[in-house]
Amino acid sequence: MWKYEKKLEYPININKKDLKMAKALLAQYGGPDGEFTAAMRYLNQRYTMPDEKGYALLNDIGTEELAHVEMIATMVKQPMKEATPRELLDAGLTGQYVQHDHALFPTDANGVPFTAAYFQTTGDFNADLMEDMAAEQKARITYEHLMDLTSDPDLLAPLAFLRQREVVHFNRFKELRDYYLQKYNKK
Amino acid sequence: MWKYEKKLEYPININKKDLKMAKALLAQYGGPDGEFTAAMRYLNQRYTMPDEKGYALLNDIGTEELAHVEMIATMVKQPMKEATPRELLDAGLTGQYVQHDHALFPTDANGVPFTAAYFQTTGDFNADLMEDMAAEQKARITYEHLMDLTSDPDLLAPLAFLRQREVVHFNRFKELRDYYLQKYNKK
Amino acid sequence: MWKYEKKLEYPININKKDLKMAKALLAQYGGPDGEFTAAMRYLNQRYTMPDEKGYALLNDIGTEELAHVEMIATMVKQPMKEATPRELLDAGLTGQYVQHDHALFPTDANGVPFTAAYFQTTGDFNADLMEDMAAEQKARITYEHLMDLTSDPDLLAPLAFLRQREVVHFNRFKELRDYYLQKYNKK
Amino acid sequence: MWKYEKKLEYPININKKDLKMAKALLAQYGGPDGEFTAAMRYLNQRYTMPDEKGYALLNDIGTEELAHVEMIATMVKQPMKEATPRELLDAGLTGQYVQHDHALFPTDANGVPFTAAYFQTTGDFNADLMEDMAAEQKARITYEHLMDLTSDPDLLAPLAFLRQREVVHFNRFKELRDYYLQKYNKK
Amino acid sequence: MWKYEKKLEYPININKKDLKMAKALLAQYGGPDGEFTAAMRYLNQRYTMPDEKGYALLNDIGTEELAHVEMIATMVKQPMKEATPRELLDAGLTGQYVQHDHALFPTDANGVPFTAAYFQTTGDFNADLMEDMAAEQKARITYEHLMDLTSDPDLLAPLAFLRQREVVHFNRFKELRDYYLQKYNKK
Amino acid sequence: MWKYEKKLEYPININKKDLKMAKALLAQYGGPDGEFTAAMRYLNQRYTMPDEKGYALLNDIGTEELAHVEMIATMVKQPMKEATPRELLDAGLTGQYVQHDHALFPTDANGVPFTAAYFQTTGDFNADLMEDMAAEQKARITYEHLMDLTSDPDLLAPLAFLRQREVVHFNRFKELRDYYLQKYNKK
Repeated sequence: MWKYEKKLEYPININKKDLKMAKALLAQYGGPDGEFTAAMRYLNQRYTMPDEKGYALLNDIGTEELAHVEMIATMVKQPMKEATPRELLDAGLTGQYVQHDHALFPTDANGVPFTAAYFQTTGDFNADLMEDMAAEQKARITYEHLMDLTSDPDLLAPLAFLRQREVVHFNRFKELRDYYLQKYNKK
Repeated sequence: MWKYEKKLEYPININKKDLKMAKALLAQYGGPDGEFTAAMRYLNQRYTMPDEKGYALLNDIGTEELAHVEMIATMVKQPMKEATPRELLDAGLTGQYVQHDHALFPTDANGVPFTAAYFQTTGDFNADLMEDMAAEQKARITYEHLMDLTSDPDLLAPLAFLRQREVVHFNRFKELRDYYLQKYNKK
Repeated sequence: MWKYEKKLEYPININKKDLKMAKALLAQYGGPDGEFTAAMRYLNQRYTMPDEKGYALLNDIGTEELAHVEMIATMVKQPMKEATPRELLDAGLTGQYVQHDHALFPTDANGVPFTAAYFQTTGDFNADLMEDMAAEQKARITYEHLMDLTSDPDLLAPLAFLRQREVVHFNRFKELRDYYLQKYNKK
Repeated sequence: MWKYEKKLEYPININKKDLKMAKALLAQYGGPDGEFTAAMRYLNQRYTMPDEKGYALLNDIGTEELAHVEMIATMVKQPMKEATPRELLDAGLTGQYVQHDHALFPTDANGVPFTAAYFQTTGDFNADLMEDMAAEQKARITYEHLMDLTSDPDLLAPLAFLRQREVVHFNRFKELRDYYLQKYNKK
Repeated sequence: MWKYEKKLEYPININKKDLKMAKALLAQYGGPDGEFTAAMRYLNQRYTMPDEKGYALLNDIGTEELAHVEMIATMVKQPMKEATPRELLDAGLTGQYVQHDHALFPTDANGVPFTAAYFQTTGDFNADLMEDMAAEQKARITYEHLMDLTSDPDLLAPLAFLRQREVVHFNRFKELRDYYLQKYNKK
Repeated sequence: MWKYEKKLEYPININKKDLKMAKALLAQYGGPDGEFTAAMRYLNQRYTMPDEKGYALLNDIGTEELAHVEMIATMVKQPMKEATPRELLDAGLTGQYVQHDHALFPTDANGVPFTAAYFQTTGDFNADLMEDMAAEQKARITYEHLMDLTSDPDLLAPLAFLRQREVVHFNRFKELRDYYLQKYNKK
């Protein structure tokens, strides 16, 4: 079980209204390589890792991804805080406004609702950890796309932080996979 | 952000192999009224509650629902722990075995992957809290259906606990809605 | 079975071309809290209400929601009647034009096709009627969002009518639930 | 708008418990070529038929398909009326019982929720009417599959009636298409 | 099995940047009546045609549709080749850029991922070939919609070619159906 | 474009009726890690590989995956060739029979229609090739699950062949990724 601590993993204070960025950031909220997908992937896979070491790593990273979900939620919310309904429509956020007002809802950047089809669990450490490494690479490049879209330092700082965490996670998943391949004499 | 505490909200020890119950329990894992749906609903809605009191309640209950996800995961996993591949096929868990082996994956009891279309966020406290009250009623009846399917006390005890939590949550959402209706002079 | 009567429940005559409103109105056509969802929800649930009184109410309201589907269809169609293909593209209605021309198709405002995952039937009057009350609140707030987007009286009048019907339905579902709670001594 | 008349288009009285048939019949309830799909297809397409004659035909048949939805609902409900929870599980109706009890919910025979992706509207009479003719052929063969599965006369009679209606609808769509092809000098 | 030949069925050289057309063309890539749908439909249906003649026709046309998938891929890619990230956002291609950069991904024009629910296979030649005839009509009108949106001859030429192929396929499916109806004495 | 050669990549002759295996094999037809997913993934990603070498590899493997789709189709079809309708129902293939008779349709082993959400394209060679390596691992373990379910040598031989091809593909994707990492000085 989890205990909530009322702080963000990394501070976020976006003052500039930027509705197109809000829309773009939804990709990392409920999109294919977004933070919800990541959290659900690792928290599901942890149960079938071969030992406690693997369970612990996936549990840690899965729990951190829940914190990233919160960060992205904040980053979607703040730049559309002051937007009027018509401004949301003009920015292509029609579905956002009419169906959810300023509330968060996990879709991708096109408004397609999150689906668990975005990830997989196979019960095989080799397949699962390779999927995790791929997932971190895909999240990394998505953050790079987002960083290409803005020059606002208030957005760039948390995006750079999140991108960096994906790189760290990638390395940790790679180490675990190498460890298991050696332990179980696989290649 | 969240901190993980390595214990279940309620102890679970299911020793009897019961594959049909494992399949049935998936309804509360990745199904329409399941615990993933509940956690995501409340953790998304919390941001647009009118004040800190509402934010706190949805955050608390959303965090507890994450603990329920873990409980259901354990309840799905334990009764199929010793099952052979052919036994899983014979129990209608073909997709489970071939696609996921003994790993957890959030589908409903038919194997349909979780979708965020199961819940809604509207930015309106009255609509959101009414949806939450409905959600708790739907989860309650789903637990009652599950309880009708088994006489195993190891399954019945956590199911009764979870059912009871839904009743408690229902009441807390109802109180919050009444409080807001009065505060904002609505009916 | 049903008999068709060739008139709208409420007259609709929208002369102003307003493609952004046409797109927004799709939310109430094939969207999560839209009129298709409502009609299908009640017409499915009616079969498991505890008595004839419940069957009749859900049947009546479900039948009225079919009339609302027609009203929304008309409200989507009229404001895009004279639009050229490029105008539809410029208004974010690319999928509408290329895939459906000026024809009606039940999606939400993002172009996501209608799915039955938007509603639920549980066989339990308490859960179903609470879901119905929530549904009416969600439809109400969606209509309020739509009314915030326009000052055209030809649009505002039917939107206000439809919003009002949701309030009436909410009250009728509430009364029925209270009646059943008392009748069956539940709380 | 529609008026409800409290009778079925064709009488249905199924007394034999047959859970496998109940599951199979879901194909025609919320499945790809089922009656919900048919009703929604025609009631959407009617708006862009070239003239009143086309509107009227699609409206009539769409309205009749709503009556068929009711018939199939009755045919799903009756053969599982007396079934216990475990019997439903044993018949592969786990999702049905846990998620919906004995209530109706529009899925296909695998439990996949209805989606509007099953049909199309193009604004072109030739494409739409050809889709309608194909739809009637697909519904016809689905009814034939259902009839191959049972020898119960109480099931066979309404299935034969519904199959025959599809043939009639096919012919009426074909006549309308021929009429328009001639009227508009197309081939 | 297939052998790849490195050439397009019809030459494509689009030099004009036209992001709104790129978005529109996605309808024929991963959309309901698009080329992926067509290829998958025919290559699946071929196995249950009554004889070798039918197998061969569906196999040929299915294989040609794979070539059309390639053509559309090229037509989506070329007009957005030089586009900057912000230009893609301004053209409503936010999801495209953030989630896929300039890579191809099979969605419809709204960004909804391809689903096999768009087509059907019934094992009945009459139903399947009628669905195929309908599919070709729907693809034809979609190409006409796309042609209405541009005056660029580099786009119009391949679109006209593809539209014409749909007409040819329609006729071949019609001939095959007529042949089978006569052979099997059906009407 | 492709040319069809009328032979299977590997011979398949399954004479034993085994409906549970037919159902299980659907996982590799239209399931998350199935051959359709693989073919679409590589044929989409090839366009954004950094050079001709990458394009060629993804094109080759994508084309081979189309041949694997055919192999799986044959492996699903043959073991249910002689099955009666009721036998299909008893084996949990209700949706297969009623909706598709003996025809092929791309679903997973639960009957969930194929969706493009199962794969991704990012325009980044590192992310895409890592996803491809993961995909091959996931397909490998799925084949191992299928091989655990049967002792029929007519099934085991093609399954072993297909499993081995996944290992070969994994290695070729790994080599290509290593080559690019070195070429572009990344890590």
